[in-house]
Formats: sequence, structure tokens, C-alpha cells
Amino acid sequence: MFVRNAWYVAAQSEEITHALTQRWIIGEPLVVYRTRAGEVVALDDRCPHRRASLSKGSLVGDDVQCGYHGITFDCSGACVHVPGQERIPPAMRTRKYPVIERWNWIWVWMGDAEADESLLPAFQYNDSPGWKAVGGVLQVNANYQLLSDNLLDLTHETYVHGKTIGNSAIVETPMEYEVKGNEVHIKRIIHDAPPPPLFKRVRNFEGNIDRWQVIRFQVPAHISIDARGYPAGSDDMARALRWFSMNSITPIDERRSMYYWTITRCFDLENEELSQLIYDKILATFLEDVEVIEAQQVLIETDRRGLIDTSVRADSGSISARRIIQRLSEAEAAADAGVTA
Amino acid sequence: MFVRNAWYVAAQSEEITHALTQRWIIGEPLVVYRTRAGEVVALDDRCPHRRASLSKGSLVGDDVQCGYHGITFDCSGACVHVPGQERIPPAMRTRKYPVIERWNWIWVWMGDAEADESLLPAFQYNDSPGWKAVGGVLQVNANYQLLSDNLLDLTHETYVHGKTIGNSAIVETPMEYEVKGNEVHIKRIIHDAPPPPLFKRVRNFEGNIDRWQVIRFQVPAHISIDARGYPAGSDDMARALRWFSMNSITPIDERRSMYYWTITRCFDLENEELSQLIYDKILATFLEDVEVIEAQQVLIETDRRGLIDTSVRADSGSISARRIIQRLSEAEAAADAGVTA
Amino acid sequence: MFVRNAWYVAAQSEEITHALTQRWIIGEPLVVYRTRAGEVVALDDRCPHRRASLSKGSLVGDDVQCGYHGITFDCSGACVHVPGQERIPPAMRTRKYPVIERWNWIWVWMGDAEADESLLPAFQYNDSPGWKAVGGVLQVNANYQLLSDNLLDLTHETYVHGKTIGNSAIVETPMEYEVKGNEVHIKRIIHDAPPPPLFKRVRNFEGNIDRWQVIRFQVPAHISIDARGYPAGSDDMARALRWFSMNSITPIDERRSMYYWTITRCFDLENEELSQLIYDKILATFLEDVEVIEAQQVLIETDRRGLIDTSVRADSGSISARRIIQRLSEAEAAADAGVTA
Repeated sequence: MFVRNAWYVAAQSEEITHALTQRWIIGEPLVVYRTRAGEVVALDDRCPHRRASLSKGSLVGDDVQCGYHGITFDCSGACVHVPGQERIPPAMRTRKYPVIERWNWIWVWMGDAEADESLLPAFQYNDSPGWKAVGGVLQVNANYQLLSDNLLDLTHETYVHGKTIGNSAIVETPMEYEVKGNEVHIKRIIHDAPPPPLFKRVRNFEGNIDRWQVIRFQVPAHISIDARGYPAGSDDMARALRWFSMNSITPIDERRSMYYWTITRCFDLENEELSQLIYDKILATFLEDVEVIEAQQVLIETDRRGLIDTSVRADSGSISARRIIQRLSEAEAAADAGVTA
Repeated sequence: MFVRNAWYVAAQSEEITHALTQRWIIGEPLVVYRTRAGEVVALDDRCPHRRASLSKGSLVGDDVQCGYHGITFDCSGACVHVPGQERIPPAMRTRKYPVIERWNWIWVWMGDAEADESLLPAFQYNDSPGWKAVGGVLQVNANYQLLSDNLLDLTHETYVHGKTIGNSAIVETPMEYEVKGNEVHIKRIIHDAPPPPLFKRVRNFEGNIDRWQVIRFQVPAHISIDARGYPAGSDDMARALRWFSMNSITPIDERRSMYYWTITRCFDLENEELSQLIYDKILATFLEDVEVIEAQQVLIETDRRGLIDTSVRADSGSISARRIIQRLSEAEAAADAGVTA
Repeated sequence: MFVRNAWYVAAQSEEITHALTQRWIIGEPLVVYRTRAGEVVALDDRCPHRRASLSKGSLVGDDVQCGYHGITFDCSGACVHVPGQERIPPAMRTRKYPVIERWNWIWVWMGDAEADESLLPAFQYNDSPGWKAVGGVLQVNANYQLLSDNLLDLTHETYVHGKTIGNSAIVETPMEYEVKGNEVHIKRIIHDAPPPPLFKRVRNFEGNIDRWQVIRFQVPAHISIDARGYPAGSDDMARALRWFSMNSITPIDERRSMYYWTITRCFDLENEELSQLIYDKILATFLEDVEVIEAQQVLIETDRRGLIDTSVRADSGSISARRIIQRLSEAEAAADAGVTA
């Protein structure tokens, strides 16, 4: 179940150069490259001639030449050359996907409707003055919504991430949540509790902290977490930990996903040792999630009895997010079928 | 095609400790562990919350804590703790499977009906005074009934196991068979024939032997073989080879099986060199079967023409066993559908 | 989509000895072997008893003994022995496939209709006085028709094989094509153009050449290419390059194929260094095709939108070949269904 009229991260900016790269998004293959002027282009990777993979071809200037029979397409997807004949068949074009490169990631609009820039998630702190981001991308062999669920219920940190960002204070503190249009907002404020190991190490907290987790879900699977830790009872940002965990899950297909992530902080920006520490520890943290979620995917796929999930209070956010995705996806399917509500 | 109301071997006793272990039986995942008091517990491995794998969680005393969100179940499958809330949803329980640990194996009842201890197969010689067992377990990438078939027609020993337990005397001697309720009994008594290589080596037979093969099939795939070799014309047990080959096939799913086996003998019990010899040679023998049967599985799976097997006299036992499984399986399906015969 | 009433290459002659070998053709497993007298036999590899793999059994004289229960078949597929019983069930026979060994390849007729030797393709130059062949076989993970398409539109040489047999002269020269019954004939004659790298190296052309590509497609996927290069304006065979590229694609199943190929030349026959050069360069050339075609197979298999190929003039030959295969295949399906046209 995918929402097509949405932005998906296709790559980190640094991954795309003046060379053809293949990417899969919601089951579709794309060829992605950067023009000589630096603009990023995303086209359907299937050559309309015989479905050869354009990404195995070559760049001729800023045009893509299919590596099989030499049919050539420009940045708009229009065919500009068919070897051996003058006439270009009208159907000989490959789909161009709208692209926005922003905040160090490359966003692709997969829908048929006009690309709506306002639907880009609020990930500006990935690349803003006063903020320092570290991050990466992981392939996860699981449905993308299992990864969304994971990020929308942080009680799992207590059980999965006890070595880094989890402790029992999280699960003991209820969260508030609110659905706003197609967004879900979740907030948990933990008062006067011990810091988890990584927080303690990063900011040398000597006593308890007040910890904030402010989560925002945007369609289809963009989840930002405003994470804060203050010395308990204080609001002194100079001694606080504050970072955003910015997460965007791109489905490769129904069973595999690319997990793009950053941690972007607003303190001690020049400290490269600290950047490396955060990168290492958060990567280890996410790899713990991957192990749990890939096992979950296996048990879901093999479930022939169709078990119904039994929910608890902490699931409120993820259930709301799934409802939004289901509603939008069904609306798109109805529109495809020519039904108007 | 599986019979659910039956006992399946989930593990050898030594494999299960006070630690969570995953096992698959007839397509279902189980988490199996031993309490501190030593009792074996088997629960549905799918956490009822979000189908995470309980076997990736941890033991808290004798309770299973899901490694994802910390929901905790006791040995009965009842939920005893949902982190962050007092109320435990009534549906929050995981299925408990009846377990019997006996004769060094752990038996699990997979059915909905009440567990019927009288359906345990007669495998007592795996652990009886005066008997010494060696054995192990193999994964075989084939349907479990192909392994039953194998054990119910020992003429294959002549062609597959000429190095150990087979020779032409087997195939030249017809077998008798009888169906008794849900059991199949097969008997072949070979008179005055050369011993196969392993028999000769184990008991130093100098001349011909009388060889017995008395096979008993119990549902779903428990096959014991009372194997004997006497010096021809003698009934002197002191010079005889006698062992039981105890076999139990547990389907992982329709295409993969776990093959539990022992050879348990009633002579020369303390001879460890002999125990090792028997283990090595019988393992090698079963690996010959695995090669044949996995190739057979491939040719069955790829058969788009739906070839009908052509049977011979020696198939009588395996055909009867398959009919029993089919009848019981269909009766269970009818019961599921609410049909009464 | 397969045509059954056709010849398929099962092996190169040298691959088949007096030993059992498994081969898959259009989804069917065969056991292939050579009798002591040297005749090649091809039988259905599924033992009619329990679908064990006959190719895992053994040869007893010229008969095949199943390695599982010893049931034995002669070269005609008739059962000659069932261990343990006198009576041979009438259905106990395995299908014999007609075989012709010719021109160093072993051809098997997969159809129900009588084998029609006249449908063997004209591949005699693989083994004729005055000709010297080099060749081999590759497994390609793609549908066989993608390989036929490849060989029927040589404009791809310009883009895929620029290091060996391709250059821009090919794509600039239109081809002529003609359908003759179930054959497709394609001709391209390039006048006064630079030789491609391999041609230049093989015949030391100093200037431009006239190049011939005369292609003949025969059912189901036999493609011969009469390739010639003359010094431009000359018809002096003594200075010319002339070889046949003989290609036969055998589907393993719908997604995998065996690609049998030779290059057979009529000049400099004794030059073994030249033979090795041609073998190495043509193998490298075909591996370039394999990379392109296997990627194409992935994009076709994953295409859920069912894109319609957009054709160009150079596709005329391959489209005609596909139409022939479709027509014959549909006629066979209609005949199977008892429909007469």
C-alpha cells in the first residue's frame, strides 16, 4: 500500500554525480543523475523501446543514451534520437519524475498529480546554520510502515536500545498525540529521570534530566523527532542536549525499504569526535531496530492465520499514521478507477 | 497437508535450556524454553501486539518479555505486563502449546483439540534401561511425507545404502503389511542372506544372517524400525544385532522438514567406539537419503504436468500411511468448516 | 510461451558421455546419456514411480537404473525391471525424446508430434570440411526470446560491442527483412565503412570494408548470421573475413536460458592462435549482451504497469520472429484443447 502523490528520498545528495544511478521507489525503477550544471534528473529507468535499463547506458552530454540500441532521451524524458531512422515515434518517451534537491537529500515526486512542494517535510535542520548533521542510509528487508511504526512508538527504546538512548523512564511516561490533517504529532516529556547512556556521555549530565520527545509524522514516512535533554528543572540550552532525529523511509517495494536518517544537533558543532560518536552510536541503535523489524517482517509474511494485532495505548500514533496512509492510498485507487467521492 | 492434532518433535532435550529458542512446526513459529524448574514451555512466537518475534526477546524469571515493546507473557501465554499502562487488553495473550518431554525429545501438540498423550509414539527405547541410543537431527529441504515414504519402503536401502545397511537380499524378500487403525505395520524377514556391510562390522557375523525389519508408522510421521540380525537359523540374542531406528519427521513447512533420528541398541552398551561408529555410519546413510529426496522434491515442485505416480508392491505401506494422513487432515478441515460427518 | 514441436539443443556433443546428465528444456527435466555404442538417449528425468531424479541413478549397461528403488528403464523408456516383483505395471515407463546428434550439438525434439528432421536448422557449417568452428555455451538468466531479439537486431552491436564487432556503420545502414514461412531473413550490407576492431585485427584490413550481415531465424530460437567483410569494392574471398555466427537458445524455463554459440570460419583454418582470439573476443562480446539482457529481464518481470514496447524500424525482424512463435504456440495450445482450426 503506497501513496504515490508524495515525496520520497531517492538518495543523499553526495551519492548522485554526473553518472547514471539506479534507484527503486515504491516498486518503480528510476535512473537518477546530475546534469553538468548540477541539476538532478530522475527518469523511468525502463527504456520505452524494449525495457532495457537506462541506468546501464551512458550520458551523452546531459542526455541518457540507452546502452542497448542507442535510443537517446533528454532531461525531460523526450526521445531525441533513434539510431537508424529520422522519425521518432510519439510514444518513445520515458517518464520524468519531479525532483527537488534540498537539505542534502534528493526528493522525488512519484505521483501523477502535479508535484506539490508544500508536501515536503520540515527537514530544514538537516542543513541549516547553527546545526550539524550526521547520517546515512540503510537497506531494511521489511515493509516501510513497520519502520514508521517503530519511530512513532518510542517505548521500544526502553527494550531495544538500553545501551544508547533507551531507559525505563520512557515507558513510564505517557505520550500525548494529536492528528492534524495528514500529520501526526506526538509528545512525551519526561521529568527528572536518569539520562540514557548516550545522552549522559554526550552532555556529561551529572544528575537527572528532563527529556523531550516531540515527534512529527508526515506522509508517507517522514518522521522528525525533536529530542531534548535538560538538566532536571532547568531550561538552560547551553547545558542541554538537543538534536533532531530526521528519518525518511523510502519503500523499494512492499518488502524492502531504504532508511534515510540524520541526527542534527545545535550544540558543540565543531566537535568532530562528538560527530563521530553520535554517528557510531545511532547507527548501532538503528541496526538493533533492523534486527527486530526484519524478524517481524518474516512473522507477518508467514502468518497464514491473519492474526489481528492487539493494540495498546502507545500505538495511538502509529495507528493514526497508518489510517492516513490507507485513506490517501484508497483515494488514489478510487481516482485511478475513475470514481469521484 | 498437515495433521494438527498430533505430537511433533520440537527439539532434542539437550537443545532447550533456560533461553529462548525459535522452532517452526507445520508452518507455525514457536518460542521454546525451559523454566528455571526445568519444565519446557512452547508458545506462539508471534507477539500478539505487532507480531514481533518473542524468541528475540528475553526471559524475565520464567516469563517471556518481548524484545520490541516489553510486553511480557507467563508460561501459560497470558500477558502479565504491558509497559506504560495498567490495563491488559483481553486479547493480549499468546497461544500456549502442550508439551511433553520424554525419551530425550520434546514433543509439542499442535492441535486445537485437547492434547492426547496416548498418541505419543512408542519411542520408549530411546531412553530405557538396557538400551543405548545415538542420534541427531537434520534439516531436509523436502516435504515430510517424502521422508515417511522413504522409511516405509526399505527396498531403497539396496540402491541408496549399499555401503552400510543395504544389499540385494532386502529387495528380494517381500514384505507383509497391515493397517491397524491409524497405524501401519510392515514386516520383512529375510532368511539366510549375507549381512549388509555395517551389520557385519558391528557384530562380526561370519556367515549369513536372518534379518528382521519390523516397521511401525504412527501419525503424523513417527516411524520406528525394529531391526535385527541373527546368525542364520539361530535365535541367539547374545550374538544378534538388534536396534531400533526411531525416526520422527517434523515439517517446518510444506517444503522443509526436520528429521529427528536415533539408533538405540540393546547390546554392547558401554562400547563408545561402537556408538561412534554407528552414529557416523547411520548419519552418512541418512545423508544419502537427503540427496535423493531433495532432488525428488525439486522434480515434484516443478512438475506442471501433474504426473500420477505409478506404484509397485513395495509402496503398500507408504500409500496406507498417506491415506491415513489425508483422511485425518480432511476431517480436521471439515471440522474447521463446521461440517459434521 | 514455448513451441514444443521443435528441436532444442540439449548439449554440445563433447558434454555427453556414457554417464547420466541432467538437462532442463522448456521447463522439463531430461536425463541424457550416450550408450556404449555411442548413441545419445534423452528420457524424462522423472522416474514414473515417485518422481525421483533418474539422472542421480546409474547406468546398468545401456539401461538407466533409478538410484532410489532400483526401477530400471531401457533406451526406449520402457521399464525392464521392478525390484521385488515380476509384474511391470503398464504405466511404468518414462518418456523418450527423439534425439539427433549433428554438427557437434545434440538436438532434442520436445513435441508430441512426430519428430520432423526437416525442422533442424541449417547449422551444417558447424562441422563441415573447409570450416573451423569455435564456441561454447552460457547460462543466461533471462527469457529466451530476449536473446533472439538481441540477435535479430544487430544495431545493438554499435552500442554494446564497440570494443569488438560494433561500430556506427551498422546503425547507419538499414536492413532488409523478409518472412518466409516460419523463417525470418534479414540482410544488411554496409558499403565502404571502417571495419570494427575485431574484424580489423583478424584480417588486417588496411582500409574500409564492405560488410555483410545475413541473418536467418528458424523456430524456436536458432539464428545463423552469415558475416562477411571484404576490402571495400572487392569480392576477393582470399582477403575477406567470412564466418557464420551460429546461435541456438534453449529455454531452461521462462526465466532462464542456455545460449549455445559457435563462430565457424572458412579462412586460415589451422591458425590456432586465431581460433583462440576469436573465441576470447566473441565470448567477451556475448558476456556484454548477457549483462544488458539480464537487467532487461529484471525490468520486465517487475513491470506491474504492463508497459507496451515502442518499436522502431530495426525491430521488424524480431517482431516477425515473435509472431511466428506466438502463432505456433497458440496452435499447439488449441490442438491440446482439442480445437481444430
